Amino acid sequence: MMDCIFCQIVAGKLPSETLYQDEEVIAFRDIHPLAPTHVLIIPKRHIPSLAQLTDAETPLIGHMAKVANKLAQEEGVAESGYRLVVSSGEQGGQIVPHLHMHLLGGRRLSDKLC
Amino acid sequence: MMDCIFCQIVAGKLPSETLYQDEEVIAFRDIHPLAPTHVLIIPKRHIPSLAQLTDAETPLIGHMAKVANKLAQEEGVAESGYRLVVSSGEQGGQIVPHLHMHLLGGRRLSDKLC
Repeated sequence: MMDCIFCQIVAGKLPSETLYQDEEVIAFRDIHPLAPTHVLIIPKRHIPSLAQLTDAETPLIGHMAKVANKLAQEEGVAESGYRLVVSSGEQGGQIVPHLHMHLLGGRRLSDKLC
Repeated sequence: MMDCIFCQIVAGKLPSETLYQDEEVIAFRDIHPLAPTHVLIIPKRHIPSLAQLTDAETPLIGHMAKVANKLAQEEGVAESGYRLVVSSGEQGGQIVPHLHMHLLGGRRLSDKLC
């Protein structure tokens, strides 16, 4: 999927400020941050969206949340507060068609979730 | 935790429009919906926030996402688009101190995630 910018990041063909990676996922800072902490956690494998995740694959979301929790601690927002967001599809506001979880924190986040 | 309104919903002491439940989780409509589809998926057990979930407990988030995906299909938003949000802590905008995942959809959601 070399037309996918997140796959290019996974492959090291586009630069990113990588904070974590393992066999399944990679986490890097969003280049257009919406909050002081704005990290994206993505599967290394190209999965277009949450809606296309099979039931058997949903443990991946738990793993991404575990990584997000670890990064929230490292970013110093675990106690002050943070938010995880996964948007799926056009009306959901998903922009890059490669499954990703946003980790947002570092200021009082808005109550407008959508 | 009978001072927790979500525990009261789990116990059937407060009414809710329940859409799904199993041994681990229950899903019901938010009484102050922010979008045409606004469902909350919560663990039946009282867990105060995402930040207080241990690494061993994070598979629960995968299970909640699986339930959310199923409900997104039932609500007719799986293809059009939807969003999952978990807020943790005060700055994260968490209002009820019982872990919950928002499922939002049914209109074009804002790009403002926070």
